[in-house]
Amino acid sequence: MVDGSIKRVTVTRVQDYESRETTDALAVEEPLEIRLEYGPANHRKIENISVTMRTPGADAELAAGFLFTEGIVKNHEDIAAVGCCFIACAENNKNVIQVSLKEGVLPDLKNTSRNFYATSSCGVCGKGSISAIRTVSNFTQNDSEDISVIAELLYQLPEKLRQHQEVFANTGGLHGAALFNTSGELLLVREDVGRHNGLDKLIGAALNKNWLPLDHYILLLSGRASFELVQKAVMAGIRIIAAVGAPSSLAVELAQEFNITLAGFLRDQRFNIYNAGHRLILPVYENPY
Amino acid sequence: MVDGSIKRVTVTRVQDYESRETTDALAVEEPLEIRLEYGPANHRKIENISVTMRTPGADAELAAGFLFTEGIVKNHEDIAAVGCCFIACAENNKNVIQVSLKEGVLPDLKNTSRNFYATSSCGVCGKGSISAIRTVSNFTQNDSEDISVIAELLYQLPEKLRQHQEVFANTGGLHGAALFNTSGELLLVREDVGRHNGLDKLIGAALNKNWLPLDHYILLLSGRASFELVQKAVMAGIRIIAAVGAPSSLAVELAQEFNITLAGFLRDQRFNIYNAGHRLILPVYENPY
Repeated sequence: MVDGSIKRVTVTRVQDYESRETTDALAVEEPLEIRLEYGPANHRKIENISVTMRTPGADAELAAGFLFTEGIVKNHEDIAAVGCCFIACAENNKNVIQVSLKEGVLPDLKNTSRNFYATSSCGVCGKGSISAIRTVSNFTQNDSEDISVIAELLYQLPEKLRQHQEVFANTGGLHGAALFNTSGELLLVREDVGRHNGLDKLIGAALNKNWLPLDHYILLLSGRASFELVQKAVMAGIRIIAAVGAPSSLAVELAQEFNITLAGFLRDQRFNIYNAGHRLILPVYENPY
Repeated sequence: MVDGSIKRVTVTRVQDYESRETTDALAVEEPLEIRLEYGPANHRKIENISVTMRTPGADAELAAGFLFTEGIVKNHEDIAAVGCCFIACAENNKNVIQVSLKEGVLPDLKNTSRNFYATSSCGVCGKGSISAIRTVSNFTQNDSEDISVIAELLYQLPEKLRQHQEVFANTGGLHGAALFNTSGELLLVREDVGRHNGLDKLIGAALNKNWLPLDHYILLLSGRASFELVQKAVMAGIRIIAAVGAPSSLAVELAQEFNITLAGFLRDQRFNIYNAGHRLILPVYENPY
C-alpha cells in the first residue's frame, strides 16, 4: 500500500545555521473521481458522483466507504463490482474508479447535490494533471521585483502566529493562516476549523485592504500544505509559503509550476525547502578555523 | 472575534489513574452558506454558491476570499456589498452571507460545478441545525447490547496506530483512522492526506469484510474530530470515537444526538470525555490511607 502513496524528492534542509541537500518523502495527493454505474441491464447509467483529493491506495475501499457513509449505497450487497471503468481502463487511468451496483439497486442520490465535489465532465481526473483542476490566477509574477528573505527569519514565525491565535489558544482546535512582511512582522492572522477557510479569510481580509497581489509577503500555515492551500495562495499572488506541517506531493508540484517558494516542517529551528529556494538567503556555515 | 468562535462545555478529564469534571472550550463549527447576487438592476439574480463548515467570525472576509481564490470574482472593486441577504436578515440567520456584485459585473461561474459544496436549497443553513445537514444512518443502536471499555485502555491506542501508519512514518503528512476491539487490539488502519478519506477507506474496508454495524469497536482518529468525521462514524454504527486532537462544537453536538461516546485530546496518558462517558469505565482513585 505504501507504493504510490509516497513520492521522494530532493529538498534543502535548513537547520540552525546550516543547510544541506537531502531527500524527503512526500505523501502523494492526487484527485480521485468516483463514478457510479446503476440501472437495469439494458439501460445502465454512469454518473460522476465525487472528486476527492486523496492518497492513492485502497481506492476501492475509499469509493465503497464514501458511497456508504454518504448514504448513497445502503449495503455491501448492493455493490456488484468496484474497479476501473471502461474509459479509465482504456486510458490506464488510476484516478478514476467506478462502483457498479447490482441490477435493481437504486442509489439514493438526493443528497449528492449537497455535499461533494461535483464534476461537470468525465475529464477532470482523466487528465490527471494539475492544469485540469486548478483555477487560473490573474496575477503574473514580476521577476524583476522578486523578494528574498533571510532563511533564519522563518524560525520565528510559528511562535508569532501562536501568540496571536486566540481561539486556538483556548480550544487547540483551529488552523491558522498568517501574513508576514519580509522583515518577519506579523500583519494579519485568521483562524478556522477548516484550513481552507482560514486562508480564505486571510486573503479576503487582504482583499478588503487592497493589498493584492500579495507578492511581497510570506504566508505561514499552521498545519500541512495541501494542493488546495497552495492553489489559493497562487490566486492571491503569494510567492513564499511556509508551513509548520508537511506538504503533499501535489502541493509541491503546484509550487514548482508557479515558481512559488515552499518550505515545510517549519519548527524547532529547522525547515525543508521544497521549491524555489532562491528567495531564501541560506545560512553560510563559516569554519572558525 | 473570539465571541461566537468558542463554546464552553463540561467534560470529564481522565488523566493517569484519576478523573474529574471540568470545563473545556471548543472551537465552534457551523455551516456557512455563501450566496452571490449579480446581474442588471432590474433583473438581479441570487445563486447559492457554496456551503462550508467554518468557525463563525470574519464571515464577510471568508465569503470575499472564497469567491476570489476560486476565481469567481476577479477584483475587490467588483463587490458592491457583503452582508446578510434579505431572507437571512429577516430570519436573523448568521449562517447565510450574501455577496452582491456591482451592476454589470458578471461572476465566472464555470468552475462552480467542480469544486464546492453545492446546496440544492436555500434552507440548508437556514435551518442552522444538524438535522438539515446530516445523512441518516440505517443502524439503530441496540442499548441492551451496549459496550464498555476500561478508560485507561485508550491511552495505548495512539501509539498502536502510529506503529502501523506506514506512510505517515515516512512523510509526516497523513491522517490515520483505526479500528480497535474493546480489548484494545488494532484490527484495521487506513491513511490519507484527507482525514475524511482515511475514514471512508476504513469503513469501506470494514464494509468489504461484512463487519457493519461497527457497534462493538473503537474508532481512533489521529487528528481532530470534525462534524464530518462523526457523521461518517454514525453511518457505520460506531459507538465509541477517540481522537488525538480536539473535537469541534458540532462534532460534540452530533455525538450527543446519536448517543456516541466521544473522547478528545487522547495523548500523554490523558483525554477528555465530551459525551456518553457511560461506556468508559473510569479509574477510581483509591485513597491508600
